[in-house]
Amino acid sequence: MAVAPDIQVLAFDVFGTVVDWHGTITREVEVLHTDVNAADFARAWRAGYQPAMARVMSGELGWTRLDDLHRMILNNVLTDFGVQLTEQQCADLNLVWHRLSPWPDVIEGLQLLRKSYTTCTLSNGNLSLLANMAKHSDIPWDLILSAEVFKAYKPHPDAYLGVASVFDVSAENVMLVAAHHDDLEAARNCGLRTAYIERPAEPGSDQPKDVSPVAANDLHCTDFIDLATQLKCLPN
Amino acid sequence: MAVAPDIQVLAFDVFGTVVDWHGTITREVEVLHTDVNAADFARAWRAGYQPAMARVMSGELGWTRLDDLHRMILNNVLTDFGVQLTEQQCADLNLVWHRLSPWPDVIEGLQLLRKSYTTCTLSNGNLSLLANMAKHSDIPWDLILSAEVFKAYKPHPDAYLGVASVFDVSAENVMLVAAHHDDLEAARNCGLRTAYIERPAEPGSDQPKDVSPVAANDLHCTDFIDLATQLKCLPN
Repeated sequence: MAVAPDIQVLAFDVFGTVVDWHGTITREVEVLHTDVNAADFARAWRAGYQPAMARVMSGELGWTRLDDLHRMILNNVLTDFGVQLTEQQCADLNLVWHRLSPWPDVIEGLQLLRKSYTTCTLSNGNLSLLANMAKHSDIPWDLILSAEVFKAYKPHPDAYLGVASVFDVSAENVMLVAAHHDDLEAARNCGLRTAYIERPAEPGSDQPKDVSPVAANDLHCTDFIDLATQLKCLPN
Repeated sequence: MAVAPDIQVLAFDVFGTVVDWHGTITREVEVLHTDVNAADFARAWRAGYQPAMARVMSGELGWTRLDDLHRMILNNVLTDFGVQLTEQQCADLNLVWHRLSPWPDVIEGLQLLRKSYTTCTLSNGNLSLLANMAKHSDIPWDLILSAEVFKAYKPHPDAYLGVASVFDVSAENVMLVAAHHDDLEAARNCGLRTAYIERPAEPGSDQPKDVSPVAANDLHCTDFIDLATQLKCLPN
């Protein structure tokens, strides 16, 4: 394994990297409300994500779980899109983030990777969200880690360095796997190794994103099977 | 389900309840050093557990992961038993807690229980210890929770109440499952429901412990299959 001889832990970003938030949310919103542009609705909900976490990390809000941030954003998006739902419908829709479907390569890729590496999440999603998501789709994590454990949302260094601390290894023994260059850059600034995963349809297949390589990443992969191949985790 | 109509989360104590620390440690010590009473060695190591955590919770020590407490205790036990090991042997033996074997009913019981309940650990073991243990024996947790997440060792209330907080439920929606009445009593004092599991051979089959019922527990179970039966989680 020439690329990463000393990697012990693979830490995975989740939203967009492991699961297809846009596809799942669009499908659920379409069922719930046929008159709304569900693809735009999903994007608007996700667009509120970074600003909401920024309010926590600035100290404007105390520690707030992502479930509660998602609900605050949802209330605004429903107003903006002129959608009226019952309280029960809102509460249930808010939990769509617990039911997001993994990309097709994820389960097989993780099963290959966990034979040689410790695999964990490093997500801003709260612990119960990630646990329910894993149970819903049989995603085989060795450990679920979250910003909730470190009380720090990515890209705060405490989140990235927290993974190394939990596993009692150095930062360079951890590789962050993510579909977002800003997440990877923040991890690299903490001394972690980085692998980029192409997820062109993350924002919706009608608005695919640029998945060009960035040279600073250790690996650039089309999907988790490609990551497993590059890390020499091949099927027996 | 007459007994516990509103239980949503089953939180499991691990050492002694899920895994057989005495049996596994005894076997590894016997292989490593044939002249020592391995059964007594295992009990001496475990006997240092509560006093070591008490030093953390009193503030005498800052937050210290159980791996590091185990190593401090091990050093003393090795001296007391007159056993000399290399540093590498000590480091490897200290990780025996990551390799403890589950009792024979555990995997089947948890697979039944997790069909109807969210299952998690609530252990004083650190996260990597619990993750390695689960991977080693394919223990199917929905979520691994630890004193390390709450920075509070049981029986501190923050550990028990932390489980309810993570899952955004009330304390009475959580049932602690444990083979130790003091752990269950502390959970009950926080409002959790409790289930006792008989593990008579926990301290070694040569020194079986009293497993008499305590009336205050909601359930008294011979093992995890019995727990699943009493909670109406029957095989399909």
